[in-house]
Amino acid sequence: MPQDSTRDTPRPALRDPFAWIDAHHERRLAAGLVRTLRPRPADSPLTDLAGNDYLGLTRHPEVTEAAAEAARRWGAGATGSRLVTGSTALHARLEEELAAFCGFEAALVFSSGYTANLAAVTALAGPDAGGPALLVSDEGNHASLIDGCRLARAEKAVVPHADPDAVRKTLAAHGGRALAVTDSVFSVDGDAAPLPALAGACREHGAALLVDDAHGLGVLGEGGRGAVHAAGLAGAPDVVATVTLSKALGSQGGAVLGPERVIRHLVSNARTFIFDTGLAPAAAGAALAALTVLRREPQRARRVREIAAELHRRVVAAGFAAVRPDAAVVSVRAPSPEAAVRWAADCREAGIAVGCFRPPSVPDGVSRLRLTARADLSDRQVTAAADAIVRTAPAA
Amino acid sequence: MPQDSTRDTPRPALRDPFAWIDAHHERRLAAGLVRTLRPRPADSPLTDLAGNDYLGLTRHPEVTEAAAEAARRWGAGATGSRLVTGSTALHARLEEELAAFCGFEAALVFSSGYTANLAAVTALAGPDAGGPALLVSDEGNHASLIDGCRLARAEKAVVPHADPDAVRKTLAAHGGRALAVTDSVFSVDGDAAPLPALAGACREHGAALLVDDAHGLGVLGEGGRGAVHAAGLAGAPDVVATVTLSKALGSQGGAVLGPERVIRHLVSNARTFIFDTGLAPAAAGAALAALTVLRREPQRARRVREIAAELHRRVVAAGFAAVRPDAAVVSVRAPSPEAAVRWAADCREAGIAVGCFRPPSVPDGVSRLRLTARADLSDRQVTAAADAIVRTAPAA
Ligand SMILES: Cc1ncc(COP(=O)(O)O)c(C=O)c1O
Ligand SMILES: Cc1ncc(COP(=O)(O)O)c(C=O)c1O
Repeated sequence: MPQDSTRDTPRPALRDPFAWIDAHHERRLAAGLVRTLRPRPADSPLTDLAGNDYLGLTRHPEVTEAAAEAARRWGAGATGSRLVTGSTALHARLEEELAAFCGFEAALVFSSGYTANLAAVTALAGPDAGGPALLVSDEGNHASLIDGCRLARAEKAVVPHADPDAVRKTLAAHGGRALAVTDSVFSVDGDAAPLPALAGACREHGAALLVDDAHGLGVLGEGGRGAVHAAGLAGAPDVVATVTLSKALGSQGGAVLGPERVIRHLVSNARTFIFDTGLAPAAAGAALAALTVLRREPQRARRVREIAAELHRRVVAAGFAAVRPDAAVVSVRAPSPEAAVRWAADCREAGIAVGCFRPPSVPDGVSRLRLTARADLSDRQVTAAADAIVRTAPAA
Repeated sequence: MPQDSTRDTPRPALRDPFAWIDAHHERRLAAGLVRTLRPRPADSPLTDLAGNDYLGLTRHPEVTEAAAEAARRWGAGATGSRLVTGSTALHARLEEELAAFCGFEAALVFSSGYTANLAAVTALAGPDAGGPALLVSDEGNHASLIDGCRLARAEKAVVPHADPDAVRKTLAAHGGRALAVTDSVFSVDGDAAPLPALAGACREHGAALLVDDAHGLGVLGEGGRGAVHAAGLAGAPDVVATVTLSKALGSQGGAVLGPERVIRHLVSNARTFIFDTGLAPAAAGAALAALTVLRREPQRARRVREIAAELHRRVVAAGFAAVRPDAAVVSVRAPSPEAAVRWAADCREAGIAVGCFRPPSVPDGVSRLRLTARADLSDRQVTAAADAIVRTAPAA
């Protein structure tokens, strides 16, 4: 009854509160920075070097059947916050298995890696967290860690990329409680953080270390246990890790891994845990099945690293500037945003889907092709993909 | 090889950077504010008045089969950001159907209602959003809207609950670009926002209105089209709505609904859209199926409101203070946090799962039982549940 319910409120002439969006759009369009969505079909003929399905598990029959079975058995949704009705025995099992696999005391599952990162940063450094803390954040960190730092309302220091000495100096100058925050593998360039040295710097000053292992899980470490495990830091009393279930595990969701008391603290204090609906059972079931496959077939982790190294070798041999991959992501410089877009389009034309990163998704303004390796690619597919990428490259 | 890689970094005596957590925990424990997770089995014998599965769709065979089928056909995960590989034709169809059903020009699907809210607030009021804006936020708003306001780094004014005059005065005093932000149905007390009057106040001052219709979709409006539709505001050029797929639609995920240009703006600018993996296909498929059931069986929306009204009637008749429900949530005051916890436990003992809200999840410090109606409860179940709640009530 719109007429009735608005009868007593005046309806003056409508101004346009979103007029600024058109101006903003025009500016972004002129700068070549407008994105559009390109929905893909279920059975794309393209070879995918753009997604983050590093182990090729998202369409693995065991994984998809586990998703289907979980939806049937537990329902399509968790029905509420994890603190109310949203915790099932399936979530509990996933938490146990993740903690055991990655070598941590405990784990807590979230609806995404994004909300897991928001939770970890805010609950470990926010104003409720036992007095003020300093957040020391790598300038190349993922948006979700940056947003966590913004939300935490703590003092912040952004430090140069992958620079343990800068972290050490910042902690020394501060003196008080502190949390250093870093990606393990940086999402844009695929380079690894110097985790042992970072942990050393933190320990010198009694600071905690939070590592986002989104791109390390399933790829680095013994059998894919992740970069934190590879650095000998898994299960350490002063280290917390976050992971996503949406990349190597082929599903959706995220988790925080750490000492029991940290996890218990998040349960009662992290806003994106308390005020969010629990992860859908299908996603929890799929991630559990992916872990099972990975335990049984640990060679998938080595295979994806080998493919990344091979893609890098081919691109560099053809004369392009590419960062040596520490994990599954190969980042190739493009001369300009326009050239990057054209290069990616030409690759697609040649049957290869590649990522194209340009401002503002890249912190340094340098546009790149972003190639991701996948453990289930054949040698032939890798060769054909590398051929296509080199063949379609812009003149340097 | 932890030894190797840490060889050149000092390992000084470890201080305990999480010692504060134990002290924090002791304080919270003493105040009765520590939460623990209680994972539920797949087939609980309890009657659920605690979850948000308002229409009883999360275990509807059409919905769970759609989830299973989507996982099989599209994979267990979206594999990447919606801007890279994470947009499927299934996501596009869900966006079309949501927009059409709710009466908006366009829709954009997120991995959760939480991230949808963060996106809408930050992208429409943040520093990149065409100059500074004032955020006018109801003091009873959901945590995800509050976090959106914090993240937006805009000027903020928190206004008294459900008070269009306060919004009007705040907008008048400000003068510039502004966005008013409100829940449609408040999650704690289940009361509705005065949407037509709020829209009137916004229009007087050329401000935009953002409504979180998480608890309105599927429950309010013609055939469950939501509170914004019921208020005659769906599709208005100055109104944006957010919804969640995790309550009445029984799945997981969220969406922003609004004018085409607003949705296009979010695609290129909202950080929780750009830097998050797309919603899992199973969740998208389940939400689509739930929409189909709701279109075919619009009486589910009326039924859930009737049950909420009946629960309220029974509780008030027994002498308890409860807020008259505007949607599916019935909030009943408890004398203390301890009494609320005991009451909820006694209900559980009697076979009824109810929600128990206490500080800090309640803004005003008043502890409550939170009962949620479900369209698939029989009259007998409703009567039995009300009997149990009244029987186990603490002496007032
Ligand atoms: C480094 C990093 N952290 C966190 C995330 C967020 O994880 P999710 O997509 O599961 O929300 C991503 C990418 O999506 C990422 O690349
Ligand atoms: C009013 C309101 N908005 C948003 C959300 C978040 O939605 P989601 O659980 O899908 O993240 C919730 C509850 O979870 C809510 O109650």
